[in-house]
Amino acid sequence: MRTTQIRLAARPEGEPEDGCFETVQVELPDLRDGEVLLRVVYLSLDPYVRGRMSSARSYAAPMELGDVVVGGTVCQVVASRAPEVPEGAFVLSYSGWQTHAVAPARAVRRLDPAAAPVSTALGVLGMPGFTAYAGLLEIGRPQPGETVVVAAATGPVGSAVGQIARLKGARAVGIAGGPVKCRALLDEFGFDAALDHRSPRFVADLKAAVPNGIDVYFENVGGPVLSAVVPRLNTYARVPVCGLIAQYNGTAPVPTSDRLAWFLSQVLTRSLTVRGFIQDEFTRSHGRDFVRDMTGWVRDGSVRYREDVVQGLERAPEAFRGLLRGANFGKLLVQVGEDPTR
Amino acid sequence: MRTTQIRLAARPEGEPEDGCFETVQVELPDLRDGEVLLRVVYLSLDPYVRGRMSSARSYAAPMELGDVVVGGTVCQVVASRAPEVPEGAFVLSYSGWQTHAVAPARAVRRLDPAAAPVSTALGVLGMPGFTAYAGLLEIGRPQPGETVVVAAATGPVGSAVGQIARLKGARAVGIAGGPVKCRALLDEFGFDAALDHRSPRFVADLKAAVPNGIDVYFENVGGPVLSAVVPRLNTYARVPVCGLIAQYNGTAPVPTSDRLAWFLSQVLTRSLTVRGFIQDEFTRSHGRDFVRDMTGWVRDGSVRYREDVVQGLERAPEAFRGLLRGANFGKLLVQVGEDPTR
Repeated sequence: MRTTQIRLAARPEGEPEDGCFETVQVELPDLRDGEVLLRVVYLSLDPYVRGRMSSARSYAAPMELGDVVVGGTVCQVVASRAPEVPEGAFVLSYSGWQTHAVAPARAVRRLDPAAAPVSTALGVLGMPGFTAYAGLLEIGRPQPGETVVVAAATGPVGSAVGQIARLKGARAVGIAGGPVKCRALLDEFGFDAALDHRSPRFVADLKAAVPNGIDVYFENVGGPVLSAVVPRLNTYARVPVCGLIAQYNGTAPVPTSDRLAWFLSQVLTRSLTVRGFIQDEFTRSHGRDFVRDMTGWVRDGSVRYREDVVQGLERAPEAFRGLLRGANFGKLLVQVGEDPTR
Repeated sequence: MRTTQIRLAARPEGEPEDGCFETVQVELPDLRDGEVLLRVVYLSLDPYVRGRMSSARSYAAPMELGDVVVGGTVCQVVASRAPEVPEGAFVLSYSGWQTHAVAPARAVRRLDPAAAPVSTALGVLGMPGFTAYAGLLEIGRPQPGETVVVAAATGPVGSAVGQIARLKGARAVGIAGGPVKCRALLDEFGFDAALDHRSPRFVADLKAAVPNGIDVYFENVGGPVLSAVVPRLNTYARVPVCGLIAQYNGTAPVPTSDRLAWFLSQVLTRSLTVRGFIQDEFTRSHGRDFVRDMTGWVRDGSVRYREDVVQGLERAPEAFRGLLRGANFGKLLVQVGEDPTR
């Protein structure tokens, strides 16, 4: 069996250009006992992958040049030498940017297509959903009546943050790019207010949208949105930091005034809690509750989700660049192969 | 009875010059029922007072022009119309920069001169000691074998932080200005390592002093020390922020590279917790334990303290400027009147 792979050919400076990727076809090894042959159906594109393309220290080891670009996948088993994962089964895997893969059966997780669309294992019921759930409930700890603000709010993390905040009795204010996304925040995801960060009136709009200040700012963007949010944070506000997408393509420090001194003075004078986190930290403590709660919420319609599906592995680099610019609308997936469950 | 007061005459730009202060003498009103007449023995000089001299929002309301400069005091009662606080008693009060004051008896706290020198109510057994205790134990949560770093380490907060860290089984690394203070960190306060932030080798010395990285950085300084510390923070490090003295005299943002973006990327990739706090927040939860623990530790010599006593209210402005430059060595007090307990 041959697989088509997209590999890291060069480390990007700024936006990952086409030259950073190379497409190759290789023969997969024969299956050994305990292994499964996988056909990739959906590939997840996520901002953290940009960090792993660089050589700088981050929360995961960088990719090496020549590695298949990393990414979570939903796959169908096309051959199996592991009885617990039979041919035809759907699994969550970490195959990366390729069409087929061989994996140990113990490294994949079986999915039940009857419980939810299998693609949701990469979004609302997967890592992005868990990031929202654990970060908001464990670090943000929104109380009834409090105000929760999240940016990239139509994305898979942000849309879940806002909806969970409302389920816990808090007020949810979403920030997104452009009027179409802002409209979806109100109509589709039930946010209490929606703000367009591209508007020249954004800073004033934000102030007006949070008359009682901000109690939780779920940080997944960084950059200018953070600067507008910080002056509105209340005493004892919590700032879970799960991503800084606006900064990921940055190459050199931008000369500007010393915003760190300013930021720390806000941390001090308002007794702010700023907390970076990667969702793995909470798997043991919150993983079971997440599956129970989020599956229930998705089933009963309390939590909605949106997917932005691009067709064909060859479009992954272009879609990934768009992700880093905020061009996607909802959880960005690449459909690599046919999904027989739809 | 007349009192000599030092009042805020002008808001400082940068360092508080003499012109920011004016000395006046005023007649105190007659005592009413429930009030006491106080003779100030010790006046505490603390960095937070610089913030209250400015009009900018901080964690306490700014002083108004013409107000007596604020500050905690240890006083002796010279006349009383409150039976629970008799003439001759020593009390903790908040009289500010003056020689005498009238206060409601319910606004002062009686001190027992037999339990500890009365001046310690402004230092190791008072607000600075409690800041160290609550911030370190509640936010920093040092575990046995972990590394705790604190700057301004010979000051009343820093010296307590290091000693409590060691009592909890952690390794204590102190940062101070100059070899004399560094020597005291090792010989007098029992730190495991001492670093001079004025040394040209400071960044390399810090790296060498924390071979296992930093688990808790107790932030009371800000500025360049923070920049040297952040790259050494371990994953899940905690950064209680109780002060930023290096920034208090700042007037305009200093043009530099965007250290905030850099800082947040560290918060994210190492799952850091950064938490501003003012000690009041923990009075209810930790106040009783503090009095019990710290009184015991001071009595049995587990925690030592140092006081830097300046003679005469008229020297308060000069001493306060020195405090903001780090010229003091230990808890800075102004002796305003005679201390008959010494």
